[in-house]
This record gives sequence, C-alpha cells and structure tokens, in this order.
Amino acid sequence: MTIAIIGAGIAGAACAARLTQQGHQVVVFDKGRSAGGRMSSKRTEQGYLDLGAQYFTARSEAFRAQCAKWLQAGTISRWNGRLAVFDDSGLHPSPDNTARYIGQPAMQAPVVQLLGNISLHCNCPVDQLQFDGNHWQLFSKGIALGSFSQLVLAIPQQQARQLLQPFLPQSARLTTLFAATALLPCWAVNIQLEQPLLPYDAVFVKNHSISWLARQASKSGRCSAEHWLLHFSPAFSAQHLEASTEAIAEQAVIALQQISGQPINAVTTLCHRWRYAQQAPQYPVSGAVYLPDLALGLAGDWLNGGRVENAWLSGVQLAAELVL
Amino acid sequence: MTIAIIGAGIAGAACAARLTQQGHQVVVFDKGRSAGGRMSSKRTEQGYLDLGAQYFTARSEAFRAQCAKWLQAGTISRWNGRLAVFDDSGLHPSPDNTARYIGQPAMQAPVVQLLGNISLHCNCPVDQLQFDGNHWQLFSKGIALGSFSQLVLAIPQQQARQLLQPFLPQSARLTTLFAATALLPCWAVNIQLEQPLLPYDAVFVKNHSISWLARQASKSGRCSAEHWLLHFSPAFSAQHLEASTEAIAEQAVIALQQISGQPINAVTTLCHRWRYAQQAPQYPVSGAVYLPDLALGLAGDWLNGGRVENAWLSGVQLAAELVL
Repeated sequence: MTIAIIGAGIAGAACAARLTQQGHQVVVFDKGRSAGGRMSSKRTEQGYLDLGAQYFTARSEAFRAQCAKWLQAGTISRWNGRLAVFDDSGLHPSPDNTARYIGQPAMQAPVVQLLGNISLHCNCPVDQLQFDGNHWQLFSKGIALGSFSQLVLAIPQQQARQLLQPFLPQSARLTTLFAATALLPCWAVNIQLEQPLLPYDAVFVKNHSISWLARQASKSGRCSAEHWLLHFSPAFSAQHLEASTEAIAEQAVIALQQISGQPINAVTTLCHRWRYAQQAPQYPVSGAVYLPDLALGLAGDWLNGGRVENAWLSGVQLAAELVL
Repeated sequence: MTIAIIGAGIAGAACAARLTQQGHQVVVFDKGRSAGGRMSSKRTEQGYLDLGAQYFTARSEAFRAQCAKWLQAGTISRWNGRLAVFDDSGLHPSPDNTARYIGQPAMQAPVVQLLGNISLHCNCPVDQLQFDGNHWQLFSKGIALGSFSQLVLAIPQQQARQLLQPFLPQSARLTTLFAATALLPCWAVNIQLEQPLLPYDAVFVKNHSISWLARQASKSGRCSAEHWLLHFSPAFSAQHLEASTEAIAEQAVIALQQISGQPINAVTTLCHRWRYAQQAPQYPVSGAVYLPDLALGLAGDWLNGGRVENAWLSGVQLAAELVL
C-alpha cells in the first residue's frame, strides 16, 4: 500500500510513523519549509522562539508512554514554568502539578523524531487532487507528485475542505465535517524587552484580548534574551484577522502594560497570524475519519478536540483504521 | 518547463535557485534528512559538528559576489582559524591571508538559503528513472514521484552512474564521464577531548594517514567543547573503506598523538565514512554537462575540479545551459 500524507504536523507524523512501522510506503507532503506545523519554533538569529504550540500535556496512557520515550531520548523536556493567572482581580500565582512538556531544542523535535527517515516533501503545497476510484494523484503548481493507493489529510479543517471541494458531492460525511468551523484564528506576537517583566514565566489571561503570555527564556533551548510571547484570544484574533502587523503589535504592547502594570519599551516585535489555530469549543469530536470508498483519511487536532496530544491520538487512530 | 533535481547539495541548490529565478517549476529530491549534502554539519546534543566540508573559499568573481550576499545576510561568516602545517619537520604555524568561510550556524546554511521556498523532497532516495523521449519519471522504493520535462543529477559521480546505467548505451558522453573515478572516499573522525590539544585551530597534515585536523570550537555556531575533527587521506580511506568504526577511531587517536606529541584521552569518538568525498586529481574538469537529447543535466564538484565553490559554479553553469 502506498500512502500520501498531506501535512507534517504531529497528527500526520504520528500517522506516518505507525504506517511505516507496519511496512507501508509513505510519503509526507507539507507546504512549509520543514516539518512541525503549528509545533514549529521559529529560528531567529537570537535562537528559537515558540510562536505556535506553547507546551503539551499527556492525559492518555498511550501518549504518556510516547512522552516517556521522548523524555528518555532527550527529544522533549519538562517545562517547569512559574505560572500565574491574570483575571478581574489582577495578577496572582497559579502553581499546579500538571506535567508540561516542550520539544528540545525546539518544539518540532517530537514531530521530526516521528518522521525519522520517512520520505518528506517540503515547500510543497498540494493544490490539486485527482481520484480515479483506485488511486489518488497529487499535484503542486501543475507538477504531478505521484500516485498513491490511500490519501491522508492531516491539515487544518479549512485547508482540507478547500482540497476536497470537488469530492464533497460524493460524501455526505465530508460535507458534514466541513459544515461548521473547527479551528479559530490566533494572532501571536513576540516582544523583546530590555528588562525582566514579571516574576512569572507564563500567565493564563482571562476575559481579555490576550489569552496567554509566556517568557521564551523559561524554556530550555529557546532565546535566552527577554522575549515574551502573547497569544490573542480567538475572538480578538477573528475580529482583527486582516489588521496590519503594526496595529497588532501596538495592541500587544498595550496588553502587556495592562497585565504587568509597567510601561513597556519593546526592543523588537514579531507578529505571526495563525489562520487556523485553536479549537472551536462546540465542534464535535470524532477522533479521526476514514472513508474507505474514497481511500481517504482525515486526522488532526480539529477532529479530536484540539491540543497536541489529541492530534497525535488522531493520527495514531487513523493509521489503525487505514490498515484494518 | 518542469525540472527534477536529484541532490540537495550546493550544486543542486545553486542550479535550483537559478532555474526558479527564471520562472521554471523545480522539485529537488534528496536521500538525506535535510538539504546540505557534504556541507551538512551534524547536529548533536552538544551542538553542531562539521564532519564534511570544513570551510570554503571564493576565487571567482561570481562566487565572491554570492559570498558577499551571504555575509551580509549572516548566512556565512569568515573563519579565522589559526592554521598550522604538520610535515616531516613537525608542527609549525602556517598563517595566510586566504578568506575562509563557514555556514552559520551550520555549514549547510548557504544551501538552505539557496533552496528558499523551492519544493524539496527529503528522505527520498530516487532509485529508478524512466525516460520516454519527452519526460522523465522518477521512482523511490516503487513510488512514482512525478513526471518532469528535464532531469538534473547533482549527486556524486558513482551515484549518478548507478541511476543512469540503463541509459549509458544511448550516450557515449555519459559512458566517458563514468569511465574514470572522480571522487575518492574520506573517513572522518570527531574526537572529544577533556583538555585543549594544540595552540592552533586547524592543521594541514602532509605525508600521513591524516590530511586535516580542526578544532570545532574555533568555528562560530559549532560545539564549544574541545572537539577535534580528523579527515583521513584519500589513500588511507580507500584502503580501509570497510574497516570497523572502532578500528578507524583507534587510528585517529594514534594520529592525534603523533601530531600533538601528547597522550590522548578521548571522551567520545564519532566516525563518519564519506564514500564519495574528495576529488581525484586526474579526473578531467568539464564544468557541467547538458545532454539535450536526453533532457538530462549533470552538475557537481566532481565535474568541476572539486571544492564547494566549483560545485556552486557547476550548478549555476548547468542552469544557464539548460535554459538556452
């Protein structure tokens, strides 16, 4: 069986690793420059910055076992950030016992580990699909990328919908999956400061345009200078999706002043817009989806309730269904 | 025109960059996990180690201009290693004014820069080619990788010969190119020491089983601990091509003792065998080769006298010939 997987995030990589272990021929395609998806840390001259996934946790037995292996191999480490909450009563400490993990030296390390020696086609936005009833043909900018007996889409819902548009009439299930929006946007802003900001490493922000704040240097492997990452809330991000990066950076500085109670002098700001980032709370959880008639599988956080762990579980589940 | 380039070393990347600038659709394939070829630094838990290309120089106007751009962008830096020679009269300083460059933070940085957003298929050993007179079909482990109007091989001579074996009867030129051996092997050994070894950063070794010795920490971006890289001579490497890594590591320690005049306590040793590494002095220089009847181009250091600069020039020359 030859299987094309579109999307080299944690879901696609987990699916690819399982299928390869079972002896199948797998090729992974990704539009990005390297594997990782939303788990990619951005490489800068000063070091890595986490702009997407900030950490991950392990609640299921299966993912705990996977994390234990990654810890053993140095692929991930535990992140013991000093946590706080900012809410209507202000900023206050909020320690807990949850084990939080980060990739080492960058967030994508576990994705890269899963992919291992699996064939990976980067900078390759698949933009056209053909299915003749037996095989999928993939195309990127007019170039044929080969023929496969199964196709897995491990990309955000909206990108999967666009690729599968021609096939929706053939599948009521697909139409249902794409009816409601699964993933909401997220503006991320990284602000470099001259001085330490807070006696915390991360802040869960409530009832605010910001939802999260973290000090990059609290994470081993990342920039050691004073960089703070802000995630805007889904509501704010959706409302300001087309705003300029300058306007978003300005809002980020204002938010940082409100939360810290200090004037902020940003040395540098770096904005990144994730169009499809955070799970919409009402979107139903289906784990993974396999449609045998179309020789088509779908996996990803958006099908499984969001979060890194659920993306991994979705990829693993799809691999099992595919080879039944 | 759709062009497949096999090999994501500096020659393939230079060719890909030029062809892309001219508006052609290019896909690059490489058997390795990422781009760089022999210019890849190895990533270890302690940092990057240069096991292949050690530095490069720029003699031609064209490559000097390219290096000036890379310097400006921080893609490369000058390496001001303190140089020595070890010959029959022992170890003595050998400073010169040659500008030597290294990729930042790792040797492959200029290759990665050239590839930019060009479609790159990693972990993808192309092992079968079909040509119908108009299009090349590429295959890896039985998977069809697409159809292209031109094919470029930017891989070592011996690997190109193996892929092109079925086409040799059609081309006397190909047969001639593959008659003599262009690239000789090179055993590389990295030895970590507890103590500083020499008051130099690199040693050109004459009349010895070793040909080169360099201190990794003298290169910005690499491991800061006391790591020394040894390259064995082509003659020794060829003679001991199938030796165990243990035997090679032992020889490396002995050589280090001879050259330094000190007992060596290796903390760790890491061996890498480059099967096709260094230019055979007698192999003729042809720049690059383009065969219009076969819609086939060949580029690489092996066609252009060895060295990083000549690999780049070969790729650039081939791109120009291809689009004539």
